[in-house]
Amino acid sequence: MKREIYLRMLTLEEAKGLWFAKLPSYKRTRPEKVSVGEALGRVTSAPVFARWSYPSFHSAAMDGIATRAELTFGASERNPILLEAGKDFQWINTGQPLEEGFDCVIMVEKLHQMNENLVEIRSPATPWQHVRKVGEDVVASELLLTVDHLITPYDLGVLAACGVWEVDVWKRPKVYIIPTGSELIGLNSIKDPEPPPPPKVIESNSLVLKALVEEARAEAVIGPIVPDDLDMIKEAILRAISSDADLVMINAGSSAGAKDFTVHAIRDLGEVLVHGVAMMPGKPTILGMVNDIPVVGNPGYPVSAVLSFREFVRPLLLNLQGITDVVPNKIKVRLTRPVTSKPGIDEFVRVNIGRVLPQKEPVAIPLPRAAGSLTSLQRAEGMVKVARNLEGYNQEELVEADLLVEPKELEKTLVIIGSHDMTVDIIADELKRRGKDIRLISSNVGSLGGILAIKRGHCHMAGTHLLDPESGEYNRSYVQRYLKDTPLVVFHLVGRDQGFLVKKGNPKGIRGISDLTREDVTFVNRQAGSGTRVLFDYELQKAGIEPDSIKGYQNEEYTHMAVAVDVKSGVADTGIAILAAAKALDLDFIPLAREQYDIIIPKAFLELSIIQDLLSVIRSQEFRQRVIQLGGYDASHSGQVFFEQD
Amino acid sequence: MKREIYLRMLTLEEAKGLWFAKLPSYKRTRPEKVSVGEALGRVTSAPVFARWSYPSFHSAAMDGIATRAELTFGASERNPILLEAGKDFQWINTGQPLEEGFDCVIMVEKLHQMNENLVEIRSPATPWQHVRKVGEDVVASELLLTVDHLITPYDLGVLAACGVWEVDVWKRPKVYIIPTGSELIGLNSIKDPEPPPPPKVIESNSLVLKALVEEARAEAVIGPIVPDDLDMIKEAILRAISSDADLVMINAGSSAGAKDFTVHAIRDLGEVLVHGVAMMPGKPTILGMVNDIPVVGNPGYPVSAVLSFREFVRPLLLNLQGITDVVPNKIKVRLTRPVTSKPGIDEFVRVNIGRVLPQKEPVAIPLPRAAGSLTSLQRAEGMVKVARNLEGYNQEELVEADLLVEPKELEKTLVIIGSHDMTVDIIADELKRRGKDIRLISSNVGSLGGILAIKRGHCHMAGTHLLDPESGEYNRSYVQRYLKDTPLVVFHLVGRDQGFLVKKGNPKGIRGISDLTREDVTFVNRQAGSGTRVLFDYELQKAGIEPDSIKGYQNEEYTHMAVAVDVKSGVADTGIAILAAAKALDLDFIPLAREQYDIIIPKAFLELSIIQDLLSVIRSQEFRQRVIQLGGYDASHSGQVFFEQD
Repeated sequence: MKREIYLRMLTLEEAKGLWFAKLPSYKRTRPEKVSVGEALGRVTSAPVFARWSYPSFHSAAMDGIATRAELTFGASERNPILLEAGKDFQWINTGQPLEEGFDCVIMVEKLHQMNENLVEIRSPATPWQHVRKVGEDVVASELLLTVDHLITPYDLGVLAACGVWEVDVWKRPKVYIIPTGSELIGLNSIKDPEPPPPPKVIESNSLVLKALVEEARAEAVIGPIVPDDLDMIKEAILRAISSDADLVMINAGSSAGAKDFTVHAIRDLGEVLVHGVAMMPGKPTILGMVNDIPVVGNPGYPVSAVLSFREFVRPLLLNLQGITDVVPNKIKVRLTRPVTSKPGIDEFVRVNIGRVLPQKEPVAIPLPRAAGSLTSLQRAEGMVKVARNLEGYNQEELVEADLLVEPKELEKTLVIIGSHDMTVDIIADELKRRGKDIRLISSNVGSLGGILAIKRGHCHMAGTHLLDPESGEYNRSYVQRYLKDTPLVVFHLVGRDQGFLVKKGNPKGIRGISDLTREDVTFVNRQAGSGTRVLFDYELQKAGIEPDSIKGYQNEEYTHMAVAVDVKSGVADTGIAILAAAKALDLDFIPLAREQYDIIIPKAFLELSIIQDLLSVIRSQEFRQRVIQLGGYDASHSGQVFFEQD
Repeated sequence: MKREIYLRMLTLEEAKGLWFAKLPSYKRTRPEKVSVGEALGRVTSAPVFARWSYPSFHSAAMDGIATRAELTFGASERNPILLEAGKDFQWINTGQPLEEGFDCVIMVEKLHQMNENLVEIRSPATPWQHVRKVGEDVVASELLLTVDHLITPYDLGVLAACGVWEVDVWKRPKVYIIPTGSELIGLNSIKDPEPPPPPKVIESNSLVLKALVEEARAEAVIGPIVPDDLDMIKEAILRAISSDADLVMINAGSSAGAKDFTVHAIRDLGEVLVHGVAMMPGKPTILGMVNDIPVVGNPGYPVSAVLSFREFVRPLLLNLQGITDVVPNKIKVRLTRPVTSKPGIDEFVRVNIGRVLPQKEPVAIPLPRAAGSLTSLQRAEGMVKVARNLEGYNQEELVEADLLVEPKELEKTLVIIGSHDMTVDIIADELKRRGKDIRLISSNVGSLGGILAIKRGHCHMAGTHLLDPESGEYNRSYVQRYLKDTPLVVFHLVGRDQGFLVKKGNPKGIRGISDLTREDVTFVNRQAGSGTRVLFDYELQKAGIEPDSIKGYQNEEYTHMAVAVDVKSGVADTGIAILAAAKALDLDFIPLAREQYDIIIPKAFLELSIIQDLLSVIRSQEFRQRVIQLGGYDASHSGQVFFEQD
């Protein structure tokens, strides 16, 4: 197998140093003229001066009469002065020009009108009172906008009022995106409701990259998909460059595998500055130049592509337009879980962030680390960098995160940790439907994990369905054991059916728990500490089955849906999960038990508006109906208090 | 004169109450479908679920071989296991599908390749290692987006990867803008480099309103200008409504004057809910409904139009799309000047905000209050509301401001208070040209005002040109008198020519200071405390002229340019100002004296990077050349230390 090692693996700083030295900070795209009506959000390429003054003539600032102040000098209640229309004054409305010879306006409220032609004045006017004078706001030739100024709505008004119809702005950088990969299939080529057959993969990175380019106020063109072929990739690069691109992004083929041609293509046509950066995700990044145009090879994993974009492409695009990037807000957060990281590599960990205890720092819950996890980007409120000289961070360690959302959003975040249930999604949607602008963070660590998260102050509430084999009752004894010092309320959320998932048609003929010991049956388990695991172990015991006699007992998944996927894709023949998971993936379901799923909320949080909103949702008719539609759920007690403790 | 009083003058809260009750918060535009490629920045009108899982098949997460884990059980350095291609394993690259029967990937780095068909394994593999499993990130049927969700770049990737090509989103609200006013002239109708002749005024509000509509993610259509004619305005409203508008804005004619037809037009066609709001600017706001479509009469003054938009239209446009508006950041600021305000009216004062002393609150410098001051919106970093139960605020009072810029921008703000000089604009532009992202706030209160601002900690630096009549020297004695306890450095900025401005051709034949006492000559003065006034009074004294003998000596302007405008527009026959002001407005100039303009910087600020950047600009060749081009300037000592004190 032919493999090329990376040209030289640079640190992030070294790579940036090389890259931005080649593309100096004062480099801009070329200037172009746009009309003022199209100038919003563009950046000036030259200072802009007023062509004329604003206002451009003296005008009345009030409704009334225009007159000469000196005619009114000495006027008083005792000594009123009469003014004659035409000769001494003229009726005038706000905004109308002051005619030659008049130097002030007297408000209509101050006039005593004798007849159509005669008014009486009982107090003197001062010159230029109630007059909007020429140039009061802007004087001709004044600087309106500096160079490299991002044009705002108000700027448009100033420009138009001061006679500037056209503005010199930097051309928006044009980014040409080349998707490469023989396995890729375009969005538009698929009509089928089924996913494309392996090895085909939907080309979705270009959509994300295009949107990120547009967020950087640049323009993106997505070219046709190019197969893994050196010559075709080179052709595509040349075509992009000849089509006026300011930057070319090739996605992907940027790694060092046998079919990764991007680095060869760039080297053949120009210069490779960087191949491989000691960052994760984002390691297989290529930075090069062809005909003086920057050419970037983005990694193929979605998160890698995005991180490589953020570090190397976004700053460049902004710079080409003279825009200084907004430095992300930094925030100190407390990690709910340890994060280990490979030394020598700068790792970027996406995290959920929410403020739980107002007197403490917000908590940060690490999201999936895989570079292929699109949802980890979608759901993250922040990004924690583990520097390359560190091996990671401990649980509860206070670390700095870059915020990806507005700081204020953290105050409206509801953190739910514990067992996974699909009704939590319904809660999130119902909150939104009621116009509640709440971010709902849900982290699935199992029922016991949820209880411990409450204890540590990591969450507002925990979902739990832990059966006590002694009492046959759910949740109460666990709460009393682990949370005995926490005043809290346990609310019923739902009752739900657990059972064995099997492939459609039940090809292995599984009828119940005793079939699990069969030699030809592979099981997939849930993790220790999950309510489902407790239930399963309880049922095993009742049936007198030894765990060791079950093939796959050691294989653990963390969610119902993961179990369903394993069964659907053949990783296992069966596993235990809720009915809704079976329905979602069109699997058959062999019922085992109906269990009780509750939520634990510390009393300290009960009065929070986000908790009140949540309780109102789970007690609503809409929620219950939607839950029942999922199948396998009982929502008749949703929102009722199960028990409370002080 | 016919005048109608406002229907009823409501407080801001009352008006909002009436308005938003009519247009309830759950009201949305209708849903429409857009392709995922066009969905960025749109808002979902329904929850979105995954149509299939992502990834959609098991694939290799590493380059290497796909095999069955059980074949490797027991492998060790001492007991290597041989695997045969085709039978036991298959070569696989990252991303390629795992074929049926294989359940793990072994990285190429861990293989000992004997030949093309045989590899040796020296440690056991675990099932599903280095495999990206089906649904690892998203499982089919999972909730991807809630309703009322603003779609981000990352969402696009998730949607595409999970088979969602089309998204249900709320239609962007369409706003139809009707400019009214017989005095208005469209941007496109003017080709002349001269301003339109009075009473014609450029129609610039629509541009600003359109941009604000677009900022609220809605769509704006600007209709043709409608003259002040009741029937034509009614026609325009009906045309707007029939063209699918979600909201109509009529700008302006919203006041209660004889030619203000907007309120009559709305009342004739539908219902007027509000006419007149106790806010300033923005009082003449009309809120109405025609055929169930909200119709707003915006006031004509630009600042009023914007404030009325922000209070009544923007929240509505966001709401129609299911977007919660971002609450502006609040900040405590210290007022550098008192602000008086009329009780009974909520007044919004635009302010410059900059952080001068790091240990103190930022300072807020009130900007011009006039509702016609476009630049007060353009330049403001914040808005201070003077509630209707207050008569205003005192100097140095700590008040709350809504921030209009990012909080971080305040840290990069350079505050200059003092005498007005045009070279300050050049400094601002040169800083930008060097890529320094600095906001330069310049407030013109005269030389002495600048010195007092330094004393109070209101600014980073002050521009001053105060002649000491005793010594004939500039600035030193004033600094020593007023700032004797402040360690500071005084730098030379420029030398500049002061003189008398007269209309082109000098129609009154003014030759020097002695002509000012002529009966037919009106003078315009500068304010007491300005360096120009000190210079003028010194010259008067030298010439033995009594101030009382000069007509207009009491009329004071605050800037050179205002003096130039007064002369240009006939408010005065002459005034004293710098040559650059004469050149800007094409006036003649009769030289009086060359003076010295310096900048004072407290030593506490000298090491700030913004000050270092500024000093580097004023010592640069580029700055000097641009200053000299203005005319009447000597830049040979720019940036040199005049004197310092500890």
